[in-house]
Amino acid sequence: MTLRDITADDIEALAIGAWVLGTGGGGSPYLGLLNMRQLYAEGKRVQLMSPLDLADDDFVAVVSNMGAPLVGQERLTDSRSIARAVELMEEITGKHFRAIMSLEIGGGNSIQPMMAAAHLGRPVVDADCMGRAYPEAQMTSFAVGDLEPYPLTTVDPRGIESIVAKVPTWKWMERVSRKICTEYGSTASTCKAPRTGAEVKRWGIPFTTTQAIKIGAAVRAAQRAHTDPIEAILKSEDGKLLYRGKVVDVERRTTEGFLRGRTRFDGVDDWRGAAMEINFQNEWIVAWLDGKPLAMSPDLICVLDSVSGEAIGSETLRYGQRVTVIALRSPAVFLTPKGLQHVGPRAFGYDLDFKSVFAS
Amino acid sequence: MTLRDITADDIEALAIGAWVLGTGGGGSPYLGLLNMRQLYAEGKRVQLMSPLDLADDDFVAVVSNMGAPLVGQERLTDSRSIARAVELMEEITGKHFRAIMSLEIGGGNSIQPMMAAAHLGRPVVDADCMGRAYPEAQMTSFAVGDLEPYPLTTVDPRGIESIVAKVPTWKWMERVSRKICTEYGSTASTCKAPRTGAEVKRWGIPFTTTQAIKIGAAVRAAQRAHTDPIEAILKSEDGKLLYRGKVVDVERRTTEGFLRGRTRFDGVDDWRGAAMEINFQNEWIVAWLDGKPLAMSPDLICVLDSVSGEAIGSETLRYGQRVTVIALRSPAVFLTPKGLQHVGPRAFGYDLDFKSVFAS
Repeated sequence: MTLRDITADDIEALAIGAWVLGTGGGGSPYLGLLNMRQLYAEGKRVQLMSPLDLADDDFVAVVSNMGAPLVGQERLTDSRSIARAVELMEEITGKHFRAIMSLEIGGGNSIQPMMAAAHLGRPVVDADCMGRAYPEAQMTSFAVGDLEPYPLTTVDPRGIESIVAKVPTWKWMERVSRKICTEYGSTASTCKAPRTGAEVKRWGIPFTTTQAIKIGAAVRAAQRAHTDPIEAILKSEDGKLLYRGKVVDVERRTTEGFLRGRTRFDGVDDWRGAAMEINFQNEWIVAWLDGKPLAMSPDLICVLDSVSGEAIGSETLRYGQRVTVIALRSPAVFLTPKGLQHVGPRAFGYDLDFKSVFAS
Repeated sequence: MTLRDITADDIEALAIGAWVLGTGGGGSPYLGLLNMRQLYAEGKRVQLMSPLDLADDDFVAVVSNMGAPLVGQERLTDSRSIARAVELMEEITGKHFRAIMSLEIGGGNSIQPMMAAAHLGRPVVDADCMGRAYPEAQMTSFAVGDLEPYPLTTVDPRGIESIVAKVPTWKWMERVSRKICTEYGSTASTCKAPRTGAEVKRWGIPFTTTQAIKIGAAVRAAQRAHTDPIEAILKSEDGKLLYRGKVVDVERRTTEGFLRGRTRFDGVDDWRGAAMEINFQNEWIVAWLDGKPLAMSPDLICVLDSVSGEAIGSETLRYGQRVTVIALRSPAVFLTPKGLQHVGPRAFGYDLDFKSVFAS
């Protein structure tokens, strides 16, 4: 087994690439990035481990910051909170974690395992269970695989720690943990149900940390070379250009622990006269072109700054921004009938049959 | 040390007396009573232990059903849920409980430790930490004594178990555990922070189980003798008659895990032409006579059926009932400045200085 050192440069690229994969959610990686720069300046280092190198009976901590992205922008990230969520899980289960992995590679939650790993001296597994970001607990490959949903630990830096010890379903885990998170102020550092190495190898989405670093590196290289960074992403990921426009409206509500709302764009270039509307629940869920559904979850809908190629989140979108909307491919696990039950448009309340932009 | 057997007759009396001490809240003891009749019919028995017989380093489980009384009427009580909350606490803390005690002797929560004790084969401590019922976690003698507020376990019979493992204050315990309880459906079986024998002896309110049984026995004896049961309560407890009337209005909202509202009475007998209004948050908090505050927490305000002498709860009060309102004396711990911070009228949002009906 070999562990790969994650360089400071890798983390800069990760922050950019993960924000693209965040599909509007997962929280901005920016504050996490600042934490990692500080931890690296202090001499801390993190290593990346292939999921294939996990022993079947290893235990892996699955971490994320849970909540509404807008709050994550307002309340600064303390890197010790996520490490504490992992320690608390070790205390209550008596399990020792071989490594730490991200719940979702999209957005700031790509950085959370890095922060925990830097404090706890464990490697980060090159995998997640979304391949992007999703807003709810049952929207993971582990939930699609019907793995055990509990326990879950939650930590608030004011010294609040709660545990959801048992639930009958993933949706109950979502309901109870969401209420705890909401009471903390719509943000909580969480360690999800411990996974075995066997479970990660069977149901995890492998190599997504590397994928996010690769996307970010492509964007940065294009920026330096003054070539089109969006073209670089589309080429790197075999993605699809959907739309170019400018933001004319954003409606946002931080409610029930989520950031919900919708945004409207007016088209430019080839899309002049065509209006796009996107509904979001932390993440971009359905994109409508002139009132017809164009792209929807689980396809990744990414709203990018048309010039820098960097992603825009549902909490940072604002009037007048020039945006390019692209689609990237979903991990296969979510395209199955069981996967679509968890993350298809109906799972978000839209009466639509899933149709991928990559299907035709 | 001697343990006293609690007879089936004691439990019948407890249900009546505790409902009087419930001051409108604590939940109707009726469903708990049905459970205890069944458990006794199956041969189970419960014993009562004096708090003075606890060793300083014994551990005591403090239990209650938390939530909105109206929901407790609608969702039947499963006696195993409260036992499971105690077991869960033993599992996570590694502590063995010598005995079980009630959070609040008022209402159905007087019966909860009996149900747990019947299943787990432990005695019930003759004490509680309210001497009545109160709606919130920080409204206990243990909180007044600044004892550690955590951990707390919560159990829902559908197989949901959550733990509040750490909080900086009692109010944070209230906030987080209330949200969990609300998500369960505004009712949860809970085991509060374990207490040592030394803590129970210093801060517990002693002999309140016996007090509740005594009140209930006095009511039952008067009912059998066709004498006035309310007179019997007043005599037994050195209480004060405040008002007689009939219910003309009830406004009730089950909200944020509580039953809140107000009720209005029209006077009869000596109180003809005098209107009483009582505000409640599960429990009766402030009673107003013709718009002026007459009685308020921490004095016990008890609304009784004028004929049977039995208590009426905030969830069972209804139009047309003939009611007698009496006041009983608060445990001394709540009459101190620190106690009044926790349970005085301002703690419930009323801009009133506490004045006891027993002061003049």
